[in-house]
Amino acid sequence: MAASFAELWSELLPFGRDELTGGYRRYSWTQADAACRDWFARTATGLGLRTDCDRNGNLWAWWDDGASGRAVATGSHLDSVPDGGAFDGPLGIVSAFAAIARLRASGFRPARPIGVAAFTEEEGGRFGVACLGSRLLTGTIDPAVARDRFDSGGVSLADAMRAAGRDPELLGADEDLLADLDCYVELHIEQGSALDGLGAAVGVGEGIWPHGRWRFDFAGRADHAGTTRLADRRDPMLPFAAAVRAARIAAAASGALATFGKVVAEPGAANAISSAVHAWLDARAPDEAGLDGMVEEIAAAAAAAAVEHGVGLELRQESFTPLVSFDPSLRDRLVGVLAAAGMQAPVLPTGAGHDAGVLAARLPTAMLFVRNPSGVSHSPAEHAEPADCEAGVTALAAVLADLAGQ
Amino acid sequence: MAASFAELWSELLPFGRDELTGGYRRYSWTQADAACRDWFARTATGLGLRTDCDRNGNLWAWWDDGASGRAVATGSHLDSVPDGGAFDGPLGIVSAFAAIARLRASGFRPARPIGVAAFTEEEGGRFGVACLGSRLLTGTIDPAVARDRFDSGGVSLADAMRAAGRDPELLGADEDLLADLDCYVELHIEQGSALDGLGAAVGVGEGIWPHGRWRFDFAGRADHAGTTRLADRRDPMLPFAAAVRAARIAAAASGALATFGKVVAEPGAANAISSAVHAWLDARAPDEAGLDGMVEEIAAAAAAAAVEHGVGLELRQESFTPLVSFDPSLRDRLVGVLAAAGMQAPVLPTGAGHDAGVLAARLPTAMLFVRNPSGVSHSPAEHAEPADCEAGVTALAAVLADLAGQ
Repeated sequence: MAASFAELWSELLPFGRDELTGGYRRYSWTQADAACRDWFARTATGLGLRTDCDRNGNLWAWWDDGASGRAVATGSHLDSVPDGGAFDGPLGIVSAFAAIARLRASGFRPARPIGVAAFTEEEGGRFGVACLGSRLLTGTIDPAVARDRFDSGGVSLADAMRAAGRDPELLGADEDLLADLDCYVELHIEQGSALDGLGAAVGVGEGIWPHGRWRFDFAGRADHAGTTRLADRRDPMLPFAAAVRAARIAAAASGALATFGKVVAEPGAANAISSAVHAWLDARAPDEAGLDGMVEEIAAAAAAAAVEHGVGLELRQESFTPLVSFDPSLRDRLVGVLAAAGMQAPVLPTGAGHDAGVLAARLPTAMLFVRNPSGVSHSPAEHAEPADCEAGVTALAAVLADLAGQ
Repeated sequence: MAASFAELWSELLPFGRDELTGGYRRYSWTQADAACRDWFARTATGLGLRTDCDRNGNLWAWWDDGASGRAVATGSHLDSVPDGGAFDGPLGIVSAFAAIARLRASGFRPARPIGVAAFTEEEGGRFGVACLGSRLLTGTIDPAVARDRFDSGGVSLADAMRAAGRDPELLGADEDLLADLDCYVELHIEQGSALDGLGAAVGVGEGIWPHGRWRFDFAGRADHAGTTRLADRRDPMLPFAAAVRAARIAAAASGALATFGKVVAEPGAANAISSAVHAWLDARAPDEAGLDGMVEEIAAAAAAAAVEHGVGLELRQESFTPLVSFDPSLRDRLVGVLAAAGMQAPVLPTGAGHDAGVLAARLPTAMLFVRNPSGVSHSPAEHAEPADCEAGVTALAAVLADLAGQ
């Protein structure tokens, strides 16, 4: 049984990798997803773990022979953003399996069950809801709403699950499972380069910035690009451009982050003025007041430009995650365990959402970050050095041994 | 045999119409295109015309029994932009058939042959080259280059033609056909509202503004939208937004037109900074010096913003059509014929490209415009009143009778 980090990592690496870009397209309930799920089950079984799929499609692997009480959960997700990197998500799952293999080889026997989770659609890459699996588990999204989310090809989550052999009618809060969990510790590649600046291989999460996604629908009027006078135009591309500019200015002014990464122009002909431009704003800030103020500023600039160009604007919040502070005593315990293992782990905030942030509302959660020298993430260039990945496994093994030990 | 304008119009109307938007998706060599081509052949045959498809896939219907000498050609195109209107293109062909039916019913017999053409892919909606059929006919595009153009699904023109039962190896300049043509008169819906302002149902074309299409490729770096510091970003959406803004400012300053109607962001995830943004600029101006100056100004603004944000920029001219002045004596002759028929037809310039503009390099060409009250074009809302369409038929019949008469 392959059980070193490097062996497990190389087994998972090929699934869902795009040959052209080198990026990953592991969207939930696709063939690439099924290949990753098969790998999860095969690996867990090889490690002597009991596998399970919860009613929301999240995978679990349990080390619970001889253990009792509520479980220490770890894990992350297997799905990717479009053309994402190999590490965001999978690193936490491969590290969990490698840590368990190492603990087992050392003769450790958990007093509490240890569970490894692979949450479904953390990235929202197919159905547009980030942390979909953990939101369903904790009841923070209505299962009827989730079933009716559509991918870009017009397939609903319900249909995609049915095609993958899952029953979408089972979706919804899973109080029994939550009651069985004592805490959740997620290991993740850092999505920034703070650890690199601090010279540390591993860090501990402090909390997650409040963040959300807003959809801007600019409604103009399709017209011939070669004949329509400027004065007669209602071109939605112009207020969209103003919104992009305003987002950058507002983010810089408030020490926050604002990004338009997705835009769709209709009908999308080079010789036609657009009838509509749809754009998505991703915004994050250290606190909720700052986030609200920044989004209001961007919305006001977009609205003023829309009026100037005779364009309609509808603005809708598609998702929002309040400030998450990870459990302070769990966090301090992790820092102490790592220090005892000889690792100085700095405590870091992050702007990225994670399943640990969603679960934090229901149980103590914590995060471990592994150094990302370039800071690049959501990109094929995302990378962590093998030695730092090994340090992550060492850290996670120490944490699991502490939390699930006698 | 249905032969009134209204009857012919209503027969063609259903093909390629999208039920959701009400717009047309008549792209060359698709099923919708085949349905339009069948309609053309059926209608021409019903009117006693001889039909023909030239080596470049342009359709022809000939009224040449008893006629001799070089032909008077008329017509337009059947293809549409994505979600275009019903009139842009088809109006010229339906009007030509209706004019011929009316002339025939009146006992007129042409001394010269009259030809009705339906040029392939005038809009460039599938393979990205406007006036593809007339460019091939006149040899202004290399047939090898044309065969290798790809649609958005990766299908080449060569393969699309083969799938439609046409031989792409035959593509290329057709000097025999050109030698048979005396002149070409294209009737088209006005793509602006100048005639409405002048209170005229029909106008005569003066010329076509020089115009072209430029592709902007902004190359940035994909990164996580929630964690990458503003200072570390290379976000290509920002210089794109600067280019959109610059285009509007430059066009307003030079009395010209500049439009970004098509933009593609990669990877296109709401929570990822784009790795690349591809955008297409459509630019038109009264003269070539003005056009060049405007495009240079937009390119300079885009380049400066790209440098500011650490983004690469490649700029490529995808097409260019120089200033077209329609044949002055043919134009004056049309104005005279219409005046004799009781119609005051103003002479108008246009920013829109047409097959008549391409053919103008090889034979005398002219255009008739039909009033468009809203000026809207390339949109499902494009419209001409039935009475104005009838006036267009009257005008075209008078012109054909004059040009092809004894």
